[in-house]
Amino acid sequence: MARTASLSGFPEWLPEERLVELHVLDTLRRTFELHGFSSIETRAVETVGQLLRKGEIDKEVYGLSRLQDDEGDAAAKSDPHALALHFDLTVPFARYVVENAGYLAFPFRRYQIQKVWRGERPQEGRAREFTQADIDVVGDGELPFRYDVEIALVIAEALNALPIPDFLLRINNRKLAEGFYTGIGLTDTAGVLRSIDKLEKVGPAKVAELLKEELGATDEQAQAALKLAGIRTMDTSFVGQVRALGVTNELLEEGLNELEQVIAAAVQRAPGRVVADLSIARGLDYYTGTVVETVLVGHEQLGSICSGGRYDALATKGNRKFPGVGLSIGVTRLVSRILSQDLAKATRSVPTAVLVTLNNDDSWGAAQDVAAQLRSRGIATEVAAKAEKFGKQIKFADRRGIPFVWFTDDDGKHQVKDIRSGEQVDADPATWTPAEEDLHVRVTAVGGN
Amino acid sequence: MARTASLSGFPEWLPEERLVELHVLDTLRRTFELHGFSSIETRAVETVGQLLRKGEIDKEVYGLSRLQDDEGDAAAKSDPHALALHFDLTVPFARYVVENAGYLAFPFRRYQIQKVWRGERPQEGRAREFTQADIDVVGDGELPFRYDVEIALVIAEALNALPIPDFLLRINNRKLAEGFYTGIGLTDTAGVLRSIDKLEKVGPAKVAELLKEELGATDEQAQAALKLAGIRTMDTSFVGQVRALGVTNELLEEGLNELEQVIAAAVQRAPGRVVADLSIARGLDYYTGTVVETVLVGHEQLGSICSGGRYDALATKGNRKFPGVGLSIGVTRLVSRILSQDLAKATRSVPTAVLVTLNNDDSWGAAQDVAAQLRSRGIATEVAAKAEKFGKQIKFADRRGIPFVWFTDDDGKHQVKDIRSGEQVDADPATWTPAEEDLHVRVTAVGGN
Repeated sequence: MARTASLSGFPEWLPEERLVELHVLDTLRRTFELHGFSSIETRAVETVGQLLRKGEIDKEVYGLSRLQDDEGDAAAKSDPHALALHFDLTVPFARYVVENAGYLAFPFRRYQIQKVWRGERPQEGRAREFTQADIDVVGDGELPFRYDVEIALVIAEALNALPIPDFLLRINNRKLAEGFYTGIGLTDTAGVLRSIDKLEKVGPAKVAELLKEELGATDEQAQAALKLAGIRTMDTSFVGQVRALGVTNELLEEGLNELEQVIAAAVQRAPGRVVADLSIARGLDYYTGTVVETVLVGHEQLGSICSGGRYDALATKGNRKFPGVGLSIGVTRLVSRILSQDLAKATRSVPTAVLVTLNNDDSWGAAQDVAAQLRSRGIATEVAAKAEKFGKQIKFADRRGIPFVWFTDDDGKHQVKDIRSGEQVDADPATWTPAEEDLHVRVTAVGGN
Repeated sequence: MARTASLSGFPEWLPEERLVELHVLDTLRRTFELHGFSSIETRAVETVGQLLRKGEIDKEVYGLSRLQDDEGDAAAKSDPHALALHFDLTVPFARYVVENAGYLAFPFRRYQIQKVWRGERPQEGRAREFTQADIDVVGDGELPFRYDVEIALVIAEALNALPIPDFLLRINNRKLAEGFYTGIGLTDTAGVLRSIDKLEKVGPAKVAELLKEELGATDEQAQAALKLAGIRTMDTSFVGQVRALGVTNELLEEGLNELEQVIAAAVQRAPGRVVADLSIARGLDYYTGTVVETVLVGHEQLGSICSGGRYDALATKGNRKFPGVGLSIGVTRLVSRILSQDLAKATRSVPTAVLVTLNNDDSWGAAQDVAAQLRSRGIATEVAAKAEKFGKQIKFADRRGIPFVWFTDDDGKHQVKDIRSGEQVDADPATWTPAEEDLHVRVTAVGGN
């Protein structure tokens, strides 16, 4: 485990590690589909113009060019029609919604699990190629706020089903923050958010300095902004704490009301999983209400494992607006951590439950018949390729992690051996089935999480 | 359906089309795992040096460069360490095997389902971004021939489980062909294969001309090579037909014996699905024995939907060789055809089985409780976001393709309505379950294939 990738930032898993990743992906898919989200995929490639529309140049986009193309690439780079790999699934999804609006039923609920690429400096928790799992609900013209509540609950349920340590969704609301800043007389609210976003990295003293130097805030204004950012409650008591700061503003009230709804629902339906954290800013410009980051408790330095929020104008088509709310899980970041810290394990290393041995070289056909009968009942089965000594065939199964070995003697008598216990019993290929826990590979949390 | 992709060669599916693709992917995965193949994924990116190692420059590779990188790209292109997108899954798999040989149990069986990219001119059945599903078995040092037989049978079983028209695996053997050419005195066997590969495109007269002009074949030699390529039998009678051509050669005998084994097993286990077709050449240099192409009967102009074969030296590590045999299904090519010709359909357009309506705006929490109970039994359920008139909520479900609508009145009495039949019955959220065929979206072949 934890081998070094042969290309830095491009992790690849061994087969038994991939089983853990597949379990994570299958669990997310199942949860999303149970909540009525439809699967879509978008192409890996967008035009540079589309990708940079929101000024996201800081994502270190990978441009594409055909190796055999003789034309200069310097030109292609500044060409908005040039192709590049997507760096997230939100921007491509917005394009997809606009292009296919005539074919979709709104509010449109989709999940999307795909690889994305960012040419950033690799480090633990940050790869250059990684998988994201996104859910979004997008409306045509308007989208009830209730979906903000719902999407937080769906994500809490999805994360809860994974073999990971405790997690905490840290939720804030842009309207609340922006309304508050306006209320205390700081009009460059985006600027204030950018400074507050640095709070965890540089600390309150430095942020106060930034607010004063870069945005012309008074000491009082800076302290008020920091006081707001210091509020953190597991229930709706943040509302009282904000009101106690004595600022009145219409947008602030709207934001308080929205965040209160999210937290009230979460206290009831996902207790202990959600905190109102008024320091959460999210760097991206397109969020307009609810904003979310998620930490793995005890692994905070890993960064957010699930982020997102409400955006009211990411996707537009002429006068038509498609407001949405969505969250994105960093699957590779999670799986890397599960693997590097042995948080979960597959019960065996291959899908195979049974190896059918060969009695002699002519018995391959008969062995295939046995295998076909087992497979017809969902039992993953391999057939040995050579009639080696049984001891060698058993060793082969053991080495591959296959729990059962099947024998058929010259008289057509069948036996199956559990090579873990050594127990060997008569068996009928038409009816024999392993115990439920041996039928499929299962992935279980280590250490009882 | 069959909308035009907004970027030529980069198809994207609507949610109900994606359900068909998911069904194809799930079916392949299930079949592969039942036969003991392990899932792996490799990074989308390889070094240019790795990709072009086998001279595969004709695949129109997409090179990568960071948009913000100021260095010249012309240099990067000729740099073997430069990055590019993989154009198939075989070359990356060979690298993966060599890199991870110490962690794998051989013979190693893997399946790999991923996107690949080729900058070729898009046309029906040929996209620039498409999904392949590969299975391979790779040995350490040696790999019994029996795996060639097995892999053909696994693929026939996998394709057979898909909602597609009849298909036919056309199988040949390089040893047979090369032995025969050597036996008739044509020593540039690779050259002969290249000419024979053009048979379907340019016809026998033109191929004879090529053999004579480019390879110095006599008219007799050219006619003998064409006679071999003309042999096509659904059983092992090709052996007699080849022998009747009166050529003797050791390699030819070996190839005849191998192909006979594959066809004999297929006649028994996949009747009507396999043909010995001695015109099959496969352009790629690395095949050394069995070679396979697959046509959809009645859709031959689509090209091969599944190709591959035996390679004895694709992966090497010093003196260590990793021979393998594998086949690759063109998933996007298949799915495009299924969709464009309406060969299969999803039973509904969303995963959701039930919409829980709202009686009034305060009933959202109670509705979520009902939904949670249904989901706990695997029933995909959504909750309405607004307490609109019931007619409007029913219309919403209908528009999204959700078959059942759930009502809870002020007294807590539950009813569920099948909006297709109009039937409405009392129901208990703790026990009600839809009919088996309505529980999940199913994808079924249209026209009884």
